[in-house]
Amino acid sequence: MKTVLILGAGRSSSALISYLLNEATRQEWRVMVGDLSVQAAAERLEGSPVGRALRFDAGEERASREAIAQADVVISLLPAMLHPVIARYCLQEGKHLLTASYISPEMKALHPEALGKGLLFLNECGLDPGIDHMSAMQVIDRIKVNGGELTSFESFTGGVIAPDTDIDNPWRYKFTWNPRNVVMAGQSTARYLHDGQYKYIPYQQLFKRITAVHVPGYGAYEGYANRDSLGYRETYGLEGVRTLLRGTLRKEGFCSAWDVLVQLGCCDDTYVMHGVEDLTHRAFIDAFLESDAGVSVEEKLMRRFALAPQGAELTRLQWSGLLEEQPVGLATGTPAQILEHILSKKWALHPADKDFIVMWHRFGYTQGGVKRTIQASLVATGEDSVRTAMAKTVGLPLAIAARLLLEGKIAARGVLIPIAPEFYNPILAELSTLGITLAEEEA
Amino acid sequence: MKTVLILGAGRSSSALISYLLNEATRQEWRVMVGDLSVQAAAERLEGSPVGRALRFDAGEERASREAIAQADVVISLLPAMLHPVIARYCLQEGKHLLTASYISPEMKALHPEALGKGLLFLNECGLDPGIDHMSAMQVIDRIKVNGGELTSFESFTGGVIAPDTDIDNPWRYKFTWNPRNVVMAGQSTARYLHDGQYKYIPYQQLFKRITAVHVPGYGAYEGYANRDSLGYRETYGLEGVRTLLRGTLRKEGFCSAWDVLVQLGCCDDTYVMHGVEDLTHRAFIDAFLESDAGVSVEEKLMRRFALAPQGAELTRLQWSGLLEEQPVGLATGTPAQILEHILSKKWALHPADKDFIVMWHRFGYTQGGVKRTIQASLVATGEDSVRTAMAKTVGLPLAIAARLLLEGKIAARGVLIPIAPEFYNPILAELSTLGITLAEEEA
Repeated sequence: MKTVLILGAGRSSSALISYLLNEATRQEWRVMVGDLSVQAAAERLEGSPVGRALRFDAGEERASREAIAQADVVISLLPAMLHPVIARYCLQEGKHLLTASYISPEMKALHPEALGKGLLFLNECGLDPGIDHMSAMQVIDRIKVNGGELTSFESFTGGVIAPDTDIDNPWRYKFTWNPRNVVMAGQSTARYLHDGQYKYIPYQQLFKRITAVHVPGYGAYEGYANRDSLGYRETYGLEGVRTLLRGTLRKEGFCSAWDVLVQLGCCDDTYVMHGVEDLTHRAFIDAFLESDAGVSVEEKLMRRFALAPQGAELTRLQWSGLLEEQPVGLATGTPAQILEHILSKKWALHPADKDFIVMWHRFGYTQGGVKRTIQASLVATGEDSVRTAMAKTVGLPLAIAARLLLEGKIAARGVLIPIAPEFYNPILAELSTLGITLAEEEA
Repeated sequence: MKTVLILGAGRSSSALISYLLNEATRQEWRVMVGDLSVQAAAERLEGSPVGRALRFDAGEERASREAIAQADVVISLLPAMLHPVIARYCLQEGKHLLTASYISPEMKALHPEALGKGLLFLNECGLDPGIDHMSAMQVIDRIKVNGGELTSFESFTGGVIAPDTDIDNPWRYKFTWNPRNVVMAGQSTARYLHDGQYKYIPYQQLFKRITAVHVPGYGAYEGYANRDSLGYRETYGLEGVRTLLRGTLRKEGFCSAWDVLVQLGCCDDTYVMHGVEDLTHRAFIDAFLESDAGVSVEEKLMRRFALAPQGAELTRLQWSGLLEEQPVGLATGTPAQILEHILSKKWALHPADKDFIVMWHRFGYTQGGVKRTIQASLVATGEDSVRTAMAKTVGLPLAIAARLLLEGKIAARGVLIPIAPEFYNPILAELSTLGITLAEEEA
């Protein structure tokens, strides 16, 4: 009986486990779920007869290897820093490994060994990285096959809240992913290529230098550049490309409001503030503004950043409670920790909230001397605060890859990412039947 | 015969060595100057019969200790990271040590040992730190002695160019100190206290949140906050103070122009740029601006930062050659390294250039229920590009301290900074006879 072992029963595991339980029932496979909390693992299995929960602690080598030895494919949803450890166990036990994390140098170094043992260690097979690779490479390869030459590639992905959810929230955003990463986003200079020129955007300009993105049927979004777009030249085989930009999408109006927090210094994680236990939300913001007796925090913000009284920025800051005389409720903290804590009060997903994934690519190419453009976009909506679009779009590509592997439909071996047709064609085709479809527009 | 040993014959040693050669001639002392280059050491002695040059390499313990053993007082102008090594040698040989550097934790840890051996390790006895401590403490102690209570202390120091030098230079600035430190200045969040509130200024706001400073007789300056002003509360014994701000002075108009470079990301030292060998000054600046075909770099700067065509900012950037199609002339580099290299072309001191030191303190206090303010300012002008005001103001306090110590006029022992009357009264009195005087205004 074929067995898949899923490591980590956290929030992003729900869709993945559901999919594999269905397949396991149909194909007479077995699904093992390992987590530090065996209870969490059991809950995800919802009493399925083909499921088995176990306690899994990557630090316990013997027990870990015993669990892995029972599986044919291991899917790790553990923190990325644990993947090299899991990969070692998989090498020792001769098992395939799938993750949704970026390939680390340690992971990459295992390629010859994995290849030698006939194992697939497939990484970056979630949403971003994952569906972004697959959906981009499918279009890029098609352009090449048709004799076109790719000249530019821009790609933005974001996880926000669904259009019909939380209607009063002007940010159109809640924490649907690691809140700390959201607060810290963009702190290293973004690097990209535009029309053959290397371009650099430092943190202090990042949320001002946005790209307007219209997603057909879903309205106006805005994208800010990610850390280093240039790596994708090699990854995607785009050596001749003259424009290359990857970024993060937010709903229109998000960036200028977030930029106020960036400019104030609220996302700084390099020092601990004084007197945190006595801070209110409002005093936290005021600590980053000049002293001016008798002038309100709102007035100081408006003057410093040239904001309109009822403008997009102040409206959002007010809605988040950042200007309230409410105690922060922390004993100590860096600005970034305090901001995350304050924002969590309004940005935590409620049971009825639905999240929303938007991915948008723009490909510029020439074909027969004619310049052409393809825009492709993908959206996915969550069902509630557990069955999130994030969990679906991260988990389903992994689940489908595991199924294909168990069915013997993937021949590639070694430490890879899913940029070859063997991966992206069947995975994207099935995602499409599950409601995750890339819509294309050619201009 | 009493002997003083000066370690380091670099740029900042000229005034110090001249002063001590004069004293040595008068008092029948001997001046030894040690440097990695014995020739550099010899040049500083200008053939004086009381002087002796020697090769000094702090890494060679035996030779170093032999040199130190011949001295009564050692003055180290070596890089601050070497001071703990020199201090160890001085402990072993039982010699006093003077430096102009901030006390490091390693240096501080030597206090009991220095005290036990009856040695003075006096640090922070240059300009800033140095004259700033002494001039501030003289006023602070006087306010206390007269029954006043200090409520606020603001202090700014800067090294710029003299009013009558380099008249066309709109920055009124050249590199008179470590250029790299100038380019990197302010990258960690500034922290200060205003009216009892802790305040924080991140890098992206630092050159916008300036304090206007009028120096009587010398016009309009502007100050930006230094890294952490709060440490001075303990150092100066100002536990009750409600406003505490230390910063750096520049001539009016400097900060808004420098801020353009900061906002662009030109001072970033965290990554190496692409294609540096082909960069011109203008292309360097353009790499930080959005692409916009047919729009000039000047136009893009004006739009992005709301600059006036003939305004203070563009004028300064143009004067520095930053908008010229001139090759940068480096093979590789971080933005900060490239900016430093470009600026050095215009900001290197010419032989006829005179530098200029400005220090400004403002003390707020209450006396008999009345609020009062004292402003104190100090200026010093260099004679040329070698006999700089920077060399005088850094070197003379050390020289005077060495003389006082050799004359047996300083009783304090241990690892100290010059904040006690025993130091600041005689040193400030003598600096005044050398043309470095603090002028006070009471309001």
